[in-house]
Amino acid sequence: MSAATPQHIMQLGMGFWASKTVLSAVELGVFSTLANAPADLPTLQRKLALHQRSARDFLDALVALKLLERKNGIYSNAAETDLFLDRAKPTYVGGFLEMANARLYGFWGSLTEALRTGKLQNEGKGGEDFFAAVYAEPDRLRGFLAAMSAISAGTAHAIAANFPWEDYKTFMDLGSAQGMVPATLARAHIHLSGIGFDLPSVKPVFEEFIAHQGMSDRVRFQAGNFFEDILPKADVIVMGHILHDWDLAQKKVLLGKAFDALPKGGAVIVYDAIIDDDRRENAFGLLMSLNMLIESRGGFDYTGEDCQAWMREAGFSKTRVEPLVGPESMVIGLK
Amino acid sequence: MSAATPQHIMQLGMGFWASKTVLSAVELGVFSTLANAPADLPTLQRKLALHQRSARDFLDALVALKLLERKNGIYSNAAETDLFLDRAKPTYVGGFLEMANARLYGFWGSLTEALRTGKLQNEGKGGEDFFAAVYAEPDRLRGFLAAMSAISAGTAHAIAANFPWEDYKTFMDLGSAQGMVPATLARAHIHLSGIGFDLPSVKPVFEEFIAHQGMSDRVRFQAGNFFEDILPKADVIVMGHILHDWDLAQKKVLLGKAFDALPKGGAVIVYDAIIDDDRRENAFGLLMSLNMLIESRGGFDYTGEDCQAWMREAGFSKTRVEPLVGPESMVIGLK
Repeated sequence: MSAATPQHIMQLGMGFWASKTVLSAVELGVFSTLANAPADLPTLQRKLALHQRSARDFLDALVALKLLERKNGIYSNAAETDLFLDRAKPTYVGGFLEMANARLYGFWGSLTEALRTGKLQNEGKGGEDFFAAVYAEPDRLRGFLAAMSAISAGTAHAIAANFPWEDYKTFMDLGSAQGMVPATLARAHIHLSGIGFDLPSVKPVFEEFIAHQGMSDRVRFQAGNFFEDILPKADVIVMGHILHDWDLAQKKVLLGKAFDALPKGGAVIVYDAIIDDDRRENAFGLLMSLNMLIESRGGFDYTGEDCQAWMREAGFSKTRVEPLVGPESMVIGLK
Repeated sequence: MSAATPQHIMQLGMGFWASKTVLSAVELGVFSTLANAPADLPTLQRKLALHQRSARDFLDALVALKLLERKNGIYSNAAETDLFLDRAKPTYVGGFLEMANARLYGFWGSLTEALRTGKLQNEGKGGEDFFAAVYAEPDRLRGFLAAMSAISAGTAHAIAANFPWEDYKTFMDLGSAQGMVPATLARAHIHLSGIGFDLPSVKPVFEEFIAHQGMSDRVRFQAGNFFEDILPKADVIVMGHILHDWDLAQKKVLLGKAFDALPKGGAVIVYDAIIDDDRRENAFGLLMSLNMLIESRGGFDYTGEDCQAWMREAGFSKTRVEPLVGPESMVIGLK
């Protein structure tokens, strides 16, 4: 035997243990409970309705994963956990993890079949259309929209900070969901006003969220279907976690419609977990593309180079790629 | 917003994406295929029967996860991948990952239920006994035993190297499975001879493996049930990945029977992913204990301190803990 060990391989392959433990902890409300009050094992076991057999192993595993701290037998949230996994805080990102726990973990169990057939493996496997199904049920829709907000929060701040918003007055967020990006942009730049564009059933959820954020005076909702309807005009059009849902022809349609809706000098901002041009660094972006295999009929993630080429084909004169947060980047196209 | 980001949380929570991608790659034979010959995308797509939609994303994700390399469009195994994930090599550890892919990934989907009820979530959920079921079907048994060898290989070498074997002549491996530990000990120390002890149905698999390893002259199989039968006598008794399968009373029974089967001066070596005494470092050991929740009626992993206390209670006069490989340690008890 050489000094080589299979540690990296085993840790990666068995990573679903740690992952599912975190997802179950979010589902059980471990972090929201501890945000209210640090607690010892018997208290937590009772509050979380955990069976005594594995309660201690479960909580200590979360300590070893650095999500919890434990001092003299009292468990508490680690700083980042308290900020991002307490349901009561506006910084909560657990919505996406709740969705992953309730849906994606199971659907990813069929990854091999998806790779062999090229076919989605989610609710749509039986022929149901995922978006139609989700958007038709108010509770499921709220959950989905909250999940989308969760994964857009950090990115929204980066977009607000890293684009010359002083050159523009209006924006439109295509597929706005709850309105995390519109609310964040409007709060950061008081001269901006904007539109959230999404399917009609999103309207009450959007308006409630924007009102809660105190941005109703400058952010309004417009209902529509971005494939069937003409897009509202704005100086800047934002498309976040939208383009990767669709196949190549649909992606080009959306970029073309954005081009048409912009004034000369206007800009489109596309953001996703954009894959590095050499396709060897952004593991999350590549895995997100496999998630699109699981979740959609033709969706896939793409490199900055891919997206810039589609933008130029749509008529945009200048394009560039800028990193945002973590695996996310934005591709900017100027008309 | 502070500089805090939810990156660590999201990466951990969504870790099942990378994990399942690796598990599917093992299932599809990506690494065994590339061990024979590096190949470009169209060749791999054909050889692995991958649909074209996501074949490239899948392979590039494995590049980004450092399991594959890609040069001028030709994919090849990374060095460790080639050593540990090529089915044709004796160093293959994919057996455990195959088992995880076929069984554990799905069962872990019910972790929340397990935590709430304290009940196992595997084949035994319907009342079937897991070991009885696995041991009754030759193909399933072979797969399970190969998986056990896979996770014991590195550890077996460490045990061969880090114990004063020169002081002993015979050993017995309790719950030997295929015989990875007996074969490794016998090869490393030519003065040793030993017994693999396991259920009768393991016999042909054990004898084939030991013959293949060229160790049949010094390693023999003895069939038995370690709860019902008297254990064969030996200078050293090894129990690897055995004790964690059972509840506290059963653990103590096994240590007591080992004590009875040893001569004065004999030793028991217990190894598992032993949890650190403070229960805050060995995440894998704590997660393995949750895996025992999923897989067994009363099993759990334990700290070195726990195990030493049980050994002293069984009559062992001296005990110590020694690290092995990665998350694994051994607890040694001297009679």
